[in-house]
Amino acid sequence: MDTCKAAVFVGPGKPLEVREFAVPEVEPGAVLVKMEMAAVCGSDVHTWHDPSAEHPVIFGHENVGAIAQLGRGVTQDALGNPLREGDRVLFRRAACGRCPRCAAGESCQVNRGYGFLSSDEFPHIRGGFGQYLYMEPSPWLLRVPDDMPTERALLSVVGNHTVLNGIEKIGGIRLADTVVVQGTGPIGMGAVVQARVMGAARIIAVGAPPNRLALAKEMGADETIDIGEHPEPEDRVTLVHDLTQGRGADVVIECSGAGTAVQEGLEMVRQGGKYLVVGQATDYGTKPINPSLITRKAVLMSGVLSSSRQNIIRSFQAMHTVVRQPVEKLVTHRFPLEGVNDAFHSHETLEAMVAAILPNG
Amino acid sequence: MDTCKAAVFVGPGKPLEVREFAVPEVEPGAVLVKMEMAAVCGSDVHTWHDPSAEHPVIFGHENVGAIAQLGRGVTQDALGNPLREGDRVLFRRAACGRCPRCAAGESCQVNRGYGFLSSDEFPHIRGGFGQYLYMEPSPWLLRVPDDMPTERALLSVVGNHTVLNGIEKIGGIRLADTVVVQGTGPIGMGAVVQARVMGAARIIAVGAPPNRLALAKEMGADETIDIGEHPEPEDRVTLVHDLTQGRGADVVIECSGAGTAVQEGLEMVRQGGKYLVVGQATDYGTKPINPSLITRKAVLMSGVLSSSRQNIIRSFQAMHTVVRQPVEKLVTHRFPLEGVNDAFHSHETLEAMVAAILPNG
Amino acid sequence: MDTCKAAVFVGPGKPLEVREFAVPEVEPGAVLVKMEMAAVCGSDVHTWHDPSAEHPVIFGHENVGAIAQLGRGVTQDALGNPLREGDRVLFRRAACGRCPRCAAGESCQVNRGYGFLSSDEFPHIRGGFGQYLYMEPSPWLLRVPDDMPTERALLSVVGNHTVLNGIEKIGGIRLADTVVVQGTGPIGMGAVVQARVMGAARIIAVGAPPNRLALAKEMGADETIDIGEHPEPEDRVTLVHDLTQGRGADVVIECSGAGTAVQEGLEMVRQGGKYLVVGQATDYGTKPINPSLITRKAVLMSGVLSSSRQNIIRSFQAMHTVVRQPVEKLVTHRFPLEGVNDAFHSHETLEAMVAAILPNG
Amino acid sequence: MDTCKAAVFVGPGKPLEVREFAVPEVEPGAVLVKMEMAAVCGSDVHTWHDPSAEHPVIFGHENVGAIAQLGRGVTQDALGNPLREGDRVLFRRAACGRCPRCAAGESCQVNRGYGFLSSDEFPHIRGGFGQYLYMEPSPWLLRVPDDMPTERALLSVVGNHTVLNGIEKIGGIRLADTVVVQGTGPIGMGAVVQARVMGAARIIAVGAPPNRLALAKEMGADETIDIGEHPEPEDRVTLVHDLTQGRGADVVIECSGAGTAVQEGLEMVRQGGKYLVVGQATDYGTKPINPSLITRKAVLMSGVLSSSRQNIIRSFQAMHTVVRQPVEKLVTHRFPLEGVNDAFHSHETLEAMVAAILPNG
Repeated sequence: MDTCKAAVFVGPGKPLEVREFAVPEVEPGAVLVKMEMAAVCGSDVHTWHDPSAEHPVIFGHENVGAIAQLGRGVTQDALGNPLREGDRVLFRRAACGRCPRCAAGESCQVNRGYGFLSSDEFPHIRGGFGQYLYMEPSPWLLRVPDDMPTERALLSVVGNHTVLNGIEKIGGIRLADTVVVQGTGPIGMGAVVQARVMGAARIIAVGAPPNRLALAKEMGADETIDIGEHPEPEDRVTLVHDLTQGRGADVVIECSGAGTAVQEGLEMVRQGGKYLVVGQATDYGTKPINPSLITRKAVLMSGVLSSSRQNIIRSFQAMHTVVRQPVEKLVTHRFPLEGVNDAFHSHETLEAMVAAILPNG
Repeated sequence: MDTCKAAVFVGPGKPLEVREFAVPEVEPGAVLVKMEMAAVCGSDVHTWHDPSAEHPVIFGHENVGAIAQLGRGVTQDALGNPLREGDRVLFRRAACGRCPRCAAGESCQVNRGYGFLSSDEFPHIRGGFGQYLYMEPSPWLLRVPDDMPTERALLSVVGNHTVLNGIEKIGGIRLADTVVVQGTGPIGMGAVVQARVMGAARIIAVGAPPNRLALAKEMGADETIDIGEHPEPEDRVTLVHDLTQGRGADVVIECSGAGTAVQEGLEMVRQGGKYLVVGQATDYGTKPINPSLITRKAVLMSGVLSSSRQNIIRSFQAMHTVVRQPVEKLVTHRFPLEGVNDAFHSHETLEAMVAAILPNG
Repeated sequence: MDTCKAAVFVGPGKPLEVREFAVPEVEPGAVLVKMEMAAVCGSDVHTWHDPSAEHPVIFGHENVGAIAQLGRGVTQDALGNPLREGDRVLFRRAACGRCPRCAAGESCQVNRGYGFLSSDEFPHIRGGFGQYLYMEPSPWLLRVPDDMPTERALLSVVGNHTVLNGIEKIGGIRLADTVVVQGTGPIGMGAVVQARVMGAARIIAVGAPPNRLALAKEMGADETIDIGEHPEPEDRVTLVHDLTQGRGADVVIECSGAGTAVQEGLEMVRQGGKYLVVGQATDYGTKPINPSLITRKAVLMSGVLSSSRQNIIRSFQAMHTVVRQPVEKLVTHRFPLEGVNDAFHSHETLEAMVAAILPNG
Repeated sequence: MDTCKAAVFVGPGKPLEVREFAVPEVEPGAVLVKMEMAAVCGSDVHTWHDPSAEHPVIFGHENVGAIAQLGRGVTQDALGNPLREGDRVLFRRAACGRCPRCAAGESCQVNRGYGFLSSDEFPHIRGGFGQYLYMEPSPWLLRVPDDMPTERALLSVVGNHTVLNGIEKIGGIRLADTVVVQGTGPIGMGAVVQARVMGAARIIAVGAPPNRLALAKEMGADETIDIGEHPEPEDRVTLVHDLTQGRGADVVIECSGAGTAVQEGLEMVRQGGKYLVVGQATDYGTKPINPSLITRKAVLMSGVLSSSRQNIIRSFQAMHTVVRQPVEKLVTHRFPLEGVNDAFHSHETLEAMVAAILPNG
């Protein structure tokens, strides 16, 4: 294993290219993993089209790998579990521990994560879309239990961890809450899953197309509103009020990224309710939003962009022991490394819910 | 005291009319107060112009009165202090205790407050802009200590209680926070006062004209940004970032009601910061707001419309024992009952900060 | 229905006596219910033995009744559902709305609840252990849906509501928490049920005898520790640490009332964990407790004595739509009104989990 | 500066010995500071007497030093301020970032802090009671502004940061709260200071002797209770109830470490109040405590042992810009390095409030 292959983003809009990279010697404190499965994230596809995106980069920041080699001194994961070669792991790059965001428990502003780093710089293979990934000293690792499918482990960091982080920011789903989830992509599925296991009484998923709504039901939604059938936001707002005796939803979680979504969500939430905005990570400029809804309904709102490590742990543990829904079904498409451009295509066409790259086939 | 005078809202845009009303017999559990001071609130002025507003109504919902007669059985205030005739009191109408909002600790959806009720219905004199106000059985009362000026007691329910409620909804001002207050009217002044006594390190008030900015400094603002000097929102955002080493404010409190304010506030708040929206109580429709700022900055936001009784108590106690600022100065104009239309004028022209009606001269 | 029977507490240690009472005319705003089922609560039994307890009192504060007559003006329950004669209801006496505890959202310090009031005073029949119960004007009511068994409705106010209130005080069960429940009586069962539906990963119930541990498993416990088998507190602490990789439990909930329980719970909880103390409502004086465990483990603790109305609503709604466990099984014994002393006996001997009185047979 | 002196703990009960150490070469990422001032902490004195304490150790974990040499790559502090030689700094050892406690935002369980490490191991000079202190790569630094006295900077990490952390755990001091502080040592002073700047209405300090009570008043206490005058806990409890109209305190903060303190504090706190236990860090075994007070009063309690980095920053910023009290006066005694044993003596006799070591005279 002197060399390995990885898919490289070589410029906006250009097909990703599979290239050969040297596999570095594993220094003390470092870890080399053989990649098992990496998810194509919407942000990868978005960056791929972004004219200002830096390159070359090996994408892939939602990953499960198997330990190929442990650097000297790496013996345990973040929960104190012993690590051995062959163990599957979730992982994150070391945070700096010294910047203001680290002090605030937010994501580090100094050390960008794997999947966002230049492949021109040592150690080069730092993204999930490659056969091997080299973690510099002091990586943060979680061992995947032997009885946990790789897909399930992967999904704990696809949407679920971010939604969990956001839900905790707004004080949690309270027992017996009615929850509306806007959007039925991977993040919306995470919101349905999380709301279900946290004690929601009723979950209403708003999205399309029908096969995604069917998946939302398998993930725990009680009701669905098909935006194909109800293309007008006002109609969907009316449906939510009809389903809640005119009160509106206790909690709304925006996971769609749509331009009209926030105004629609503010109309769906009840007086004194909560609104979590996960889906607006991409900047599409200003949208018409009525701020008096925030004041007059006394809505508690929050955005959320990523997850604390504490919540990655909880999302992961919950996937192992609490979540009974068949989340593995959300990985609808699997591609070898050479199929990475097809994977991006399956994501863009909404054909795939989660498209996974299996870099070692 | 068989009859008394009160100013009546008799129709949208029409001058308020001073009329004579019978003073009812005080039934058991009821209380009659002789009004000392009532503040003209922006919502009164707004309703006055609202073509759909119901009338006739005696306005005045921010009031201090002196007990003229205690109905049988009314012996204590809400804190267990004994009550006697002549005592000054803050007061609220009884909540129903049985509606969903009462259960949630929100303001009662059944019993509207004094200042919002028809003067055609018994007991008629149910607003602060009159010589006497009759409280039906079971009013909620707070006795004003003898050493507390009436203005100071009144101000504890002008803006301060609502802002305090909102600040608690977003988890409090944290010690040493930098706080931006948008708007320098009565609510903005309340925000400056509250932020100061809760441990903010630095308060930046954004408003106009200069005399209001000077008052903001007396209330505790460290810095002011004059929107007359800086008419472009982008310039004001730049100033806030310059004053915060490029980070943005820990907390922004919107108290201006301006159409561009929420977008501007979202640009002023730091990554992971908090945004309290008090000022958008009036519905002016949608405004251009960029929702990606909420997600990408992971902002915690909240609206707030009124105050819990718990926070009225705290606002009031703080005015008595914690707040050292000369809040009495905020009552800039005083009018007899017959001057109520002049009082509304002084409010509309921004000439008055708080215009007070002294119905008994 | 001019008269009805009720069981009266006539003095400490004396058998409850079934007596005849006049059924009052239903005044406007009042409600008369025909009792369906009332639970014997540990506090009833405790009061029965208390030499200083006031009497005569008709016990029974956890009740489900069917509306026999609605006073004029009573048309809806606290959620806005229409009410009709024959509807089953959960209910609470009106709170005063004016005392400091009402302002703080705590239970009213003025109006004691049904089941705690003198039967010598009008309207006399104010406890659940009687054929009829008369609610004075402005009662707080929740209509029981037709598809909800009476037992299930009743259980939402046996332990579950109090535990829910307490869990919210300590910031909730966080997803994937390990929870230890001390005590396997009705409150412990409520703690198991609540922890399960709020997303605990693993629940360890500590109690006895074996049939109660078996019920704990049916309510959702993953593991049980039998205090008959492990009579030494140290052994039980060791077992909890063994089950948690040496870390201790994320959350411990004390529901046993035992004198050694709080020290034991503090030893079971992890560094930075949470400890909810529900079970120590009876004052047995000081116990040996090591306060340095609180400081050195930085434990967040809370007591809880009752429930907010908000949490009664949520506990009730959750019983209807979220809780899938067979909670009806917890009502192990049913007695006619004349069997009330037998019911107390079955409670004291731990033979019954929940002993219910069916006053109308 | 090839060598320097430091005071070494060489065994339980033995006088600290001033020894000579080599000053290491400063490697990349490391920092060498010349010590300005280090506080003697109660835990140092406690360890000094602890028969099981490891040694040799250079004590001193509350420190201000001046940068003597910056290792390559160290250019900024944790807030992004540029660092230069000569700048005074507060500092902490790097956390591991990978252990469960780091993930939970608690203090790292892997890397013990400066002042707790063996002086036999490289780089030896790792405690505040020495002329120089060597920080291994990646220290966490806060630059002390030029206008901030060293004493003031030091005090932000003597008690204040821990109390602030604890206060945030119990949801903050709410505006206009009445706060009782048990204990008038350095931590009690920190509690008085923090409560004052967070908006308490009234602060009651319980302690002794009179000169410490006088200092408590300078720090912001409104009232003091002298335990010399009132040696019986019941009397002190009565005084607190007398001062609070019989309600008890909204918040009690235990900072005394006394064996009877927790029971006394539980008796002082009001129904629904909060109790923060900072002072019981030393394990003196079980004490008689009545757990029914926790349940029946529904007290929210928390222990706290240390501080998050976020709260060190806030405590420090507040000392610079919010706290107006003359906290410098709390450093009552100053000793050269050779006087370290005298410093310990002045701490033990309660003669000194804070005894500071000035290792470079």
